[in-house]
Amino acid sequence: MIGIVGGVGPYAGLDLARKVFDHTLAGSDQEHLPLILLSLPATIPDRTAYLLGEVAENPGRPLAAVIGRLATAGATVAGIACNTAHAPTIYNQIVSQLQQQQVNIELLNLVAETIRFIKRHYPSSKKIGILSTTGSYRFGVYSEPLRQAGLQPIVPDTRMQEVLVHAAIYHPEYGIKAQTNPVHPQARAQLLQAAGELVRQGAELIIKGCTEIVLALPEEQLHGVPAVDPAVALARSLIRHFNPNKLKPL
Amino acid sequence: MIGIVGGVGPYAGLDLARKVFDHTLAGSDQEHLPLILLSLPATIPDRTAYLLGEVAENPGRPLAAVIGRLATAGATVAGIACNTAHAPTIYNQIVSQLQQQQVNIELLNLVAETIRFIKRHYPSSKKIGILSTTGSYRFGVYSEPLRQAGLQPIVPDTRMQEVLVHAAIYHPEYGIKAQTNPVHPQARAQLLQAAGELVRQGAELIIKGCTEIVLALPEEQLHGVPAVDPAVALARSLIRHFNPNKLKPL
Repeated sequence: MIGIVGGVGPYAGLDLARKVFDHTLAGSDQEHLPLILLSLPATIPDRTAYLLGEVAENPGRPLAAVIGRLATAGATVAGIACNTAHAPTIYNQIVSQLQQQQVNIELLNLVAETIRFIKRHYPSSKKIGILSTTGSYRFGVYSEPLRQAGLQPIVPDTRMQEVLVHAAIYHPEYGIKAQTNPVHPQARAQLLQAAGELVRQGAELIIKGCTEIVLALPEEQLHGVPAVDPAVALARSLIRHFNPNKLKPL
Repeated sequence: MIGIVGGVGPYAGLDLARKVFDHTLAGSDQEHLPLILLSLPATIPDRTAYLLGEVAENPGRPLAAVIGRLATAGATVAGIACNTAHAPTIYNQIVSQLQQQQVNIELLNLVAETIRFIKRHYPSSKKIGILSTTGSYRFGVYSEPLRQAGLQPIVPDTRMQEVLVHAAIYHPEYGIKAQTNPVHPQARAQLLQAAGELVRQGAELIIKGCTEIVLALPEEQLHGVPAVDPAVALARSLIRHFNPNKLKPL
């Protein structure tokens, strides 16, 4: 089965599962791939809060526990529907826990799959704008791997990151984590403004580097440049690893 | 955990999970309820095809196997995101399998929860229109329990059921099972026409009695009468059974 670590947040897990179905070649129920989604949000501390030092517990351990349960239930390949969980201090903890516990599953890395997707489908884009949580921002979740891949990350300044982007995700009233369905117009407006600023700074492509951002900005283009959804890259990679013949051409 | 039997069809499983989240009182990821979704569509024959005698295997057995796996993974209450699976010949098979295998889980019945929901929230509606698969139609999945509850079912005539409703779900080109995201306009138009016919026959409320129909007709009113989504009734019941304090008021 394809395993999905949901709950981080809950809607992001559904979104990744939906993209697996959307990108599967299937003309009937029976032709879809086997999939398990586990959404255990209460057990997993907020990833950004941990990275910013606001909570002590590394979310990597409970995330690894979810992956262990996915493997026990029969998943052979898995992905985590949360960008911030791919910060090295969290992700390395997940990987080492899985090794220690000898969990037999192939865990795909959302960030690595996104960069592979960009290089394949947008080979001429070199300056890559990043919208993400402040946790991902400070820990270079996308910017470091992009640099290593020979691409130039374009990020908001610290004030714009805090006031526009972080608030759009975490504000207790209009933030996407507090009000998801539908997203509050103010959250969307702030993210659109931040995206515009990245394009003004030269971004030739924008990574919607947080699952909540994708919910607010579903479009495939923002301010005239491609807007890449990491969940699409990961969903396609999950299908390819499970059965490449079931992958729908783009 | 709340367990969801997905895969029947795959998008219906996601839809039910989403409704559990939508109807949960939660202001952060961590406040959402634990949930597992299993989508194993290849193992489960089409429910309508079985009821119409086109396939021999009763889908009840593989559906019970999925519920068993949900219980093993930790689910304590579960629902099946498929109306047609609640036809007595299938549903009774599920229940007897679970008893035989001593599966320890509370399985909620989508049809019973829908009727409870209608009686509670629309107590003055007595004539209940039903849009469903031809399997549900012929086996009285909604009409029999509605009669037992003292309500009057209003159903399409056999030709309208076949040409408008069944084709909207199963047509190989424009049917919802073949093209889900987005739904083909013709599928939606046919279902709207059928709903109009039920209202013309006196229906005071319409049950969108197939998960695919809900995807095509998301609105809460059709031709001036309430249009009830069984998945909402089931989602709310799953939350109530798991933790009534987490149920969002309607």
